[in-house]
This record gives sequence, C-alpha cells and structure tokens, in this order.
Amino acid sequence: MRVFIAGMDGYLGWPLAQYLAARGHEVAGADIFFRRQWVDEMGSWSATPIPPMTERLRAFRERLGRELRFWEGDLRDYGLVETIFREFQPEAIAHLGECPSAPYSMVDVQHAVFVQTNNLTTTFNLLFAMRDVRPQAHLVKLGTMGEYGTPNVDIPEGFFEIEFRERKDRLPFPRQAGSWYHWSKVHGSNNIMFACRIWNLRATDIMQGVVFGTRIDEMGDDERLLTRLDFDQAFGTVVNRFCCQAVIGHPLTPFGKGHQRRGFLPLRDSMQCLTLALENPPEAGAYRVFNQFEEVYDVTDLALKVQRAGAALGLDVTVRNLENPRKEMEEHYYKPDHQHLFDLGYQPTHDVEAEMRIMLRDLMRYRARIEAKQDVLIPDVRWDGRREKVRFLETAATSQK
Amino acid sequence: MRVFIAGMDGYLGWPLAQYLAARGHEVAGADIFFRRQWVDEMGSWSATPIPPMTERLRAFRERLGRELRFWEGDLRDYGLVETIFREFQPEAIAHLGECPSAPYSMVDVQHAVFVQTNNLTTTFNLLFAMRDVRPQAHLVKLGTMGEYGTPNVDIPEGFFEIEFRERKDRLPFPRQAGSWYHWSKVHGSNNIMFACRIWNLRATDIMQGVVFGTRIDEMGDDERLLTRLDFDQAFGTVVNRFCCQAVIGHPLTPFGKGHQRRGFLPLRDSMQCLTLALENPPEAGAYRVFNQFEEVYDVTDLALKVQRAGAALGLDVTVRNLENPRKEMEEHYYKPDHQHLFDLGYQPTHDVEAEMRIMLRDLMRYRARIEAKQDVLIPDVRWDGRREKVRFLETAATSQK
Repeated sequence: MRVFIAGMDGYLGWPLAQYLAARGHEVAGADIFFRRQWVDEMGSWSATPIPPMTERLRAFRERLGRELRFWEGDLRDYGLVETIFREFQPEAIAHLGECPSAPYSMVDVQHAVFVQTNNLTTTFNLLFAMRDVRPQAHLVKLGTMGEYGTPNVDIPEGFFEIEFRERKDRLPFPRQAGSWYHWSKVHGSNNIMFACRIWNLRATDIMQGVVFGTRIDEMGDDERLLTRLDFDQAFGTVVNRFCCQAVIGHPLTPFGKGHQRRGFLPLRDSMQCLTLALENPPEAGAYRVFNQFEEVYDVTDLALKVQRAGAALGLDVTVRNLENPRKEMEEHYYKPDHQHLFDLGYQPTHDVEAEMRIMLRDLMRYRARIEAKQDVLIPDVRWDGRREKVRFLETAATSQK
Repeated sequence: MRVFIAGMDGYLGWPLAQYLAARGHEVAGADIFFRRQWVDEMGSWSATPIPPMTERLRAFRERLGRELRFWEGDLRDYGLVETIFREFQPEAIAHLGECPSAPYSMVDVQHAVFVQTNNLTTTFNLLFAMRDVRPQAHLVKLGTMGEYGTPNVDIPEGFFEIEFRERKDRLPFPRQAGSWYHWSKVHGSNNIMFACRIWNLRATDIMQGVVFGTRIDEMGDDERLLTRLDFDQAFGTVVNRFCCQAVIGHPLTPFGKGHQRRGFLPLRDSMQCLTLALENPPEAGAYRVFNQFEEVYDVTDLALKVQRAGAALGLDVTVRNLENPRKEMEEHYYKPDHQHLFDLGYQPTHDVEAEMRIMLRDLMRYRARIEAKQDVLIPDVRWDGRREKVRFLETAATSQK
C-alpha cells in the first residue's frame, strides 16, 4: 500500500515510516521541520540526537534497502499537497502534520492563532487534495484523547446513542478539550467528519492517548534511526519527561495533586495501532473514531513505575509534585472505551515498566544532552496567561487513591 | 454602556450601532470592509445602495447628534484590537466581525481556509484583548443556529443534561454544522467556552436563526442609514433573496423539496435580542448560549408568505423549486428551545407578513439594482465541489406537510 506520511520528521512520523516500510508498504513523506524549530524556540532539543533529514534518509536506505521519498515543504501550501498527491498517488494518508503541543499553543495570542490555523490548514489541504485527486484514499488523522476532556460519564469512541426528551439519536460525543492545541484537534475532527459526509471520503480519526518510548524494534541499533525524544514543557510528553528527569537525578514532577488519569501507550503500540487503522480502511463515506491507548493510568502511578524501573537500573529517583500550570481537574472520573482497535487485532504491550527500562537505558547514553538543557524541565507557560516558572509543592507523592 | 462592534459595516453591525446609540449607549466600531469585497467577488452588490463609511458616519451624526467612533482595520491584527480596547475601554463587545457565508466557504480550498482562519483569528484576538485589557467586559458573539444542524432530538440552548450508562453529566450539545462557515462558528463557540473557563471571562454565544429585513425604525427615512441587503447566493439570506426575487418577477427558489425548517427572525428582533444580551451580562466566568429566533418556519411556507405579501402590493409572485446545491436534509425533525431571550423580555414580531411588506416596499425602490445583477439569483456553488448553476425542478411548491 502507498502511504503518505504528513509530518514525517516528527516523533511519530519517523518511526511510522520505518514500521510501515518494514512491513512492505511503499512510504513517502513530507515535512518542513517545524518541530525542530519549535523545540529550539522552547530553549530545548531532543534528548536523542537528530541528524538532518538527508542523513535520516541515508540510514533508512541502508537499513531497508530502498529509497524513502521525501518532500521538504509546508503542507499549508495547497499546491504542494496537490503535487504530492498527483505524483505519489497515495492509497492512505497518515496525517501527523500538525503542531502537537498544548503549552506551545498557550504561550500567547500569536501561538494560539498559529497552532489552530496551522493545524486547520494542513488538514483542509489534505481533505481537498483527497477530494480532487485521491477520493478513494483513506485518511488516518492523528487526534488526541484530550479532545474529550474529563467528562463525568464514560467516553465512547466518537459517537453515542442518546435519548433526550423521549427521542433518540446517534450524535458526536461532546468534546471538552483543555488547551488551544487540543481544541485545534477538535476543530479538525469536526472538519473531517463533515468532509466524509459531503464528499464521500473515508477517514479514521485517532483519539490517541499519551505516547512514551524511545524506539521501536525496526530501528535496530542505528542511532540515526532513533526518533526524537523531547523533554521540554511543550513537546515532551509526561512519561518521556519523567524518564529524562530520572536519568539526570531530577525529581519526577507530577502537576498538582498528580491524580490526572489518562490513556497511555508505548511508541511501539502507537505504530501497531496506526498500522491496523491504515491496513483496515472503512468504506467510502465513513468517518470512524478510534480511542487509541493501551490502558488508563494515574500520572503519579506512572511516576512510581518510572521510579521502580530506575531503581532496577541503579538510579535513585524521587518524585516531587509541582504547582499545576494548567487548568484541569487533578482528581476525576475517567472511563474511555477502546474496543475498536482490539477488534482489529491490537496486541497491547502490557509490561509498561519493561518499556520504561528500555527508555531509561537509551536515555542514559544521552544524559549530557538532557543535563545541558535541564532548565526546561520546570514549566513556565501557565494557562492563566502568565509566563513564570511553577514551584514545587510540599505534598508527597502518593499512589492512586 | 460602552459597546464595541466588531464588523460595524455589515448587515447587522450597522443597524446595531444605530439601535444601541438610540438607546443611549456609547458605541464604537471597526471594519475592514471585507463584506463589500466578498459580495463584489460573487458578482453582486447590495440591493440597497451602500455609501462609503465616511458618509454613513456623517448621516449617523446628523440623525443621532453625536460621533460614532470608527476604526478602519483588520481585526486579524492583534495590535489593532489591543489598541482599540485600550483607547475605547469597552464594557461589552458585539462580535459580528466574521465571514458569514456558507456558500462562500464552500467555493474551494482557499475560501474554506480563509473563512475558518479569518473567523478563528478575529475571535482569538478579541478573547486575548479581553483577557489582557478588559477582563470584566462581556463578549456577545454572533454564532448561528446552523451550528446544531438538524438532529433527530430537541435542541437545547448550548448544553444538556444527559444520562449515559447510568452516570449523569451536563455537556455541550453536539454540533453538526452544514458548511465550512457553519463549522467555523462551532470552532469559535468552542474556543470562547474554553476562554471563559480558563480566564474567567464572560460571554454570550448567540445561536442566531436566519435574519430578514431591510430596516429598523431607528433609521428613519434617511437612505444613508439603511443597512445592506444582499441577494446573491453567498451573502443573501433566504427571505431577503425571496423578497428581491419577488420585486423583479423572478420565481422564488426553495432548494430541493423545500421543507427545510429553520429558526427565523426579523432584523428588528435581532437588534432587540442582541441588545437584551448586551444589557444583561452573565457573571464572570460564565459562558451562556442563547438560541435566538422568533419562530421555526418551513422554507416553502416562507416563500408562500412572500407570495401573499407581494400580492398585497400588486406583485405576481411564483415559486419554483431549484435543485439543491447543498447537502442537507430537506425534510426533518426540528425543535430548538429558545426560552432564554424570552426570560429576558424579548417581545417577538409575530406578524412576519407585515415585515415582508415593509421589505418589498423598500426593495421596489431598488428594483433596477436587483435586475442589474439578477444573474446571481441562481446558485452555482455546490457542496460537492462543482461550480455549476443549479437547475429548476419540476415539482410544485407545496406548503408544509
């Protein structure tokens, strides 16, 4: 299958190219390297060293024995997207070409506008290019579990049947996102749902949990094939940040009470799930939603798992809660469905601590890179608009109530 | 009260400035005159002649005896919005500064991107300027009943209490908009709801029905104070288009079966309702939603009302259904609540045919202007992406089943 990856230089895009190619798919990608710029703007860099794309492509060729086609360009340019679709004729599109950071979107008005308009525009361009060039292709769009927020009821996969005043309907499940970035994903989901309805396109919208991990097996031991691993407040996801903190002896830093519950999954599970979606397209006109995560975890429980994984490797890891820069509930009901991917054959990696040990071993090689930028480990982008480092709280970390 | 009107040159903005000023409020506004450009781009103009803003402002001063402060500029420029807020210190903001056309947003990818990014950006700029300059001010944002679509259940005002799998929550009512424009309003609603939550702002989000009308009493008989009245496929609303068709002897043109049901309201009711919202702000942190319309009507029934109103003025009006350029249900359940505004004292104009006679009399003076652009009366922007005039159908118009 010909798969086009929008955002191939990113945390998920780069491993996905390798994962799909190793399974025999023909892969092409595009990127404008915004992620590298954004992380630089946040004063940070990837814990793993990231070579230029030319070197990545060379390593790919050496390992997989073929070319990986790549366009350097901005997917906000419709002409570029249409050109790629005409030349590559994708059968599926993995859309990872959006800005993925909640704190980055909360910096100021310019960042809010940038994140939402960037994310809307890339998605629009892909939808219109599908309509006009590849109407049979399947769009697999990366959304986020964060679109749903934390309602006091179970979270279905995108839609639910309700009864209201004695009438029934099947409706989109209401979204209650928690940052301008998360809302950009809601806006995108809405646009895609509508495009499928009016243009008979097919799409899978992935409400993905929080991903962690440094590698997938397909990378072998070639450092050039590693994916990026961010640990700054904006682009580092929580377990990745905890692991970077652990290897340099910095306390792990849950926010507030630390009992936020979220769906999580290892990078290898993300690759497996995205591929299941890609290899099992829905029918024309269908817009389906997958909730994609291995299991729901309490953030403090994950910190304690990192602590145990670290202890197994001789690291002395402490946990100290930070003032919460976000506005979010720190203790709440959370029960999202995630059956669709299991129905397609998803085999979850249940041994999360084993995955964390792999991550810690990888990251211990890059301790100096993390130490060089350790100032970024304490957030200063606050949801109330202030830009000021948060402080440590005096409460002790406790496991989930 | 100091009220800032974003989009003061538009169909609603210009009468609102007069309505509020006549009630003693201090009004200021801004506009970049996009609406004039967009209508020109669609090959049309306003049936009522629209003088330049300098002349509008002179007429305003002559009638109301004071200055109307006006900034010519693009509200996508945050610096401009912040400057206006610092200089004028608004207590309320009436946000009408968005592109309001479904067909315009459906023209092509550039129009879709423009409408959504324009509408998102102006709203963001107002929200951030409120946060940083006028956090106590009240935002009254023009949304649309079209955000809800036509679900098979009653439509509450923004939120509903549901039970799902034996748990309960109060959630935003799911939106199912019908064009990129309508979705832009959903995106805006979501962003405003979130801003109120995290920044303790106060906002009223107006899900407005379809407005019709040429005037409000406050305009007197000064032609320079009339509002614009569009009749092209993109910026003309359905009753306004029907009235323009009636005065030049063109058949009235319901789309498809013509039994779409929508909430409608006369222009004077829109002014009354917006003012009720402005004069009755919610508490800090509150995001409230008003469904704003006089009554639900079937489109064909409205065509038949225009026919009767025309007959009273000696016009021979026919009705011929057109192929539907949109993808929408042409017969459907529709029962939206609209209690909040009645609770604030809204006195609806129930005699719709009398309002139509006023419109027809106004428009008969401008028959030549409508005839000069009558080619725009038949739509060619289709929801499937084609640009091709729709055809007349052979079915006869019938009143609501």
